[in-house]
Amino acid sequence: MQIATPYLMFLGDVPDKLAAKTAYGIVDWRPEWCVGQLRLPGCAADLGIPDLTIAEGVAKGARTLIVGVVNAGGVLPEHWIATIVQAIEAGLDVASGLHTRLGSVPAIAEAASRHGRQLHDVRHSDERFDTGKGIRRPGRRLLTVGTDCSVGKKYTVLALEKGMRARGLDADFRATGQTGVFISGRGVAIDAVVADFISGAVEWIAPAADPHHWDLIEGQGSLFHPSFAGVSLGLLHGAQADAFVVCHEPTRTTMRGVKHALPSIREVIDLTVQLGRLTNPEIRATGIAINTQALEEGEARALLDKLAAEHGLPATDPVRFGVEGLVDRLMAEFPA
Amino acid sequence: MQIATPYLMFLGDVPDKLAAKTAYGIVDWRPEWCVGQLRLPGCAADLGIPDLTIAEGVAKGARTLIVGVVNAGGVLPEHWIATIVQAIEAGLDVASGLHTRLGSVPAIAEAASRHGRQLHDVRHSDERFDTGKGIRRPGRRLLTVGTDCSVGKKYTVLALEKGMRARGLDADFRATGQTGVFISGRGVAIDAVVADFISGAVEWIAPAADPHHWDLIEGQGSLFHPSFAGVSLGLLHGAQADAFVVCHEPTRTTMRGVKHALPSIREVIDLTVQLGRLTNPEIRATGIAINTQALEEGEARALLDKLAAEHGLPATDPVRFGVEGLVDRLMAEFPA
Repeated sequence: MQIATPYLMFLGDVPDKLAAKTAYGIVDWRPEWCVGQLRLPGCAADLGIPDLTIAEGVAKGARTLIVGVVNAGGVLPEHWIATIVQAIEAGLDVASGLHTRLGSVPAIAEAASRHGRQLHDVRHSDERFDTGKGIRRPGRRLLTVGTDCSVGKKYTVLALEKGMRARGLDADFRATGQTGVFISGRGVAIDAVVADFISGAVEWIAPAADPHHWDLIEGQGSLFHPSFAGVSLGLLHGAQADAFVVCHEPTRTTMRGVKHALPSIREVIDLTVQLGRLTNPEIRATGIAINTQALEEGEARALLDKLAAEHGLPATDPVRFGVEGLVDRLMAEFPA
Repeated sequence: MQIATPYLMFLGDVPDKLAAKTAYGIVDWRPEWCVGQLRLPGCAADLGIPDLTIAEGVAKGARTLIVGVVNAGGVLPEHWIATIVQAIEAGLDVASGLHTRLGSVPAIAEAASRHGRQLHDVRHSDERFDTGKGIRRPGRRLLTVGTDCSVGKKYTVLALEKGMRARGLDADFRATGQTGVFISGRGVAIDAVVADFISGAVEWIAPAADPHHWDLIEGQGSLFHPSFAGVSLGLLHGAQADAFVVCHEPTRTTMRGVKHALPSIREVIDLTVQLGRLTNPEIRATGIAINTQALEEGEARALLDKLAAEHGLPATDPVRFGVEGLVDRLMAEFPA
């Protein structure tokens, strides 16, 4: 999936900011791709970028209308269809993260076919993958892993991409989730792939590359999460990670959606190394990323110092304190 | 998916026995469901059951035509379509293990709709699952795990079902692969489920049950297989297995489709217990099942004795020497 940039961000009339979380993520990490937002009357979200009509968006160079919002059940509301059809008629592709496939709506399918426009359903994957082969491939790969879902795995690799590029390293973010696909303009939502092809899809997402090139692969779930550990393991095996960063949210007590307690950072490091060795015997932890949003600055810094000492690894909040320490460690362990 | 029995077995004109492997498996385990076979000119496979026309099959009570064969690429050959349509017109449902969906062939879809017949595509899953919840549920569950793919996991649970029922135990085979679904008439091909729902699908396949009821869950892949370990882990977590039997083929040196060496039985036991504890802290190994087909009888018995002593577990070839020892151990460890 390759989504043409730049984007006109369509928010519909979502009732709150949370429903537009994906759109906020795109604007945070790719402001240069977002020419403006298109909102219907009653929309309660505001991305802080110019409100544009479809015609204004096209005039500013937009090539894709992004439906970066969720609605109850992931369904496309009837009253959004006319706007999407108008965007297609004005020459835009459309990319959606809703569960409803764009092409399953006759008016949208028909308009896209008539005007030769692409429809991207980021939540679905029509790509045919091979099963994973487990054969070592050139290039360096870093994976973010977690003590749970939603603990900052995507933000950490995006921050690393920015930080590593600033230091002259050749590094690319590799998306494995919906929001990540919008942010990178390519990739696969790995949780939508048929189970047999998880590791094969990751081999496709982060293929053989120049020996010094870094693929920074967005992790998913946790090896300790009873709902999603299978996805996390297939992702680890397909990534053949040379390095991994453990992500954690320190105030959470039970894993998302279930009653299981979070594992410790030490347990995550040990199990990731134990299982990751199957496809890369050299796998190693190179850092810890903590989402310290809920902590005062002093508290946050004390926690990071404690974790760094305890594990002998750089520990940071990538959003709050940057990724210098993580990049230093990578450069030291993997010299050019 | 619930497939109406009995079956009329359609072999088309497959060029060899291997292409009809699924059909042979069904006849092996459910001879009472197979009223006869329907073969086209040139068919090189023979299930050893009566050759019937569609009308004869219907007269003998058949309710479903089973397309239990593979063809190059899993594609439905054009010249099989007329026969399938005739079967529908004669009142049969159709169930297929091919990659091509039956309903994607207009003549078949149209006939099924006109005659109100069911089409089952065993390789695809249209069932909507929840994500796994990881909450302990009543009932006992046994899972077969392996040192590799295709080492007898399905045959072991089927032999256990027969052996346990003969001893008066309440036990049901639970299919997680295509052939298994045909054999049980229900179930889900777990490798066709979207990655996010692996463990949830297994919770659905083997739901809460009477405290003394045994679900005997067909395992898939191996925790050590770089292509499929994610599936195996999701299956383990969803199964919440109380007991597991390790399956192994002693002459194999590398895992199927890849260059990785097979793990030892000890490694499989240890990792299965380590990871399985997440959803069932009481999980334990209760036996070893070896496919000894390639060994002389004396050699086979010596190997089984050695493995039994080494691991302190009953070891058998379920097909060659029965499952008495495996059932004895289950009855001892899980008294009624």
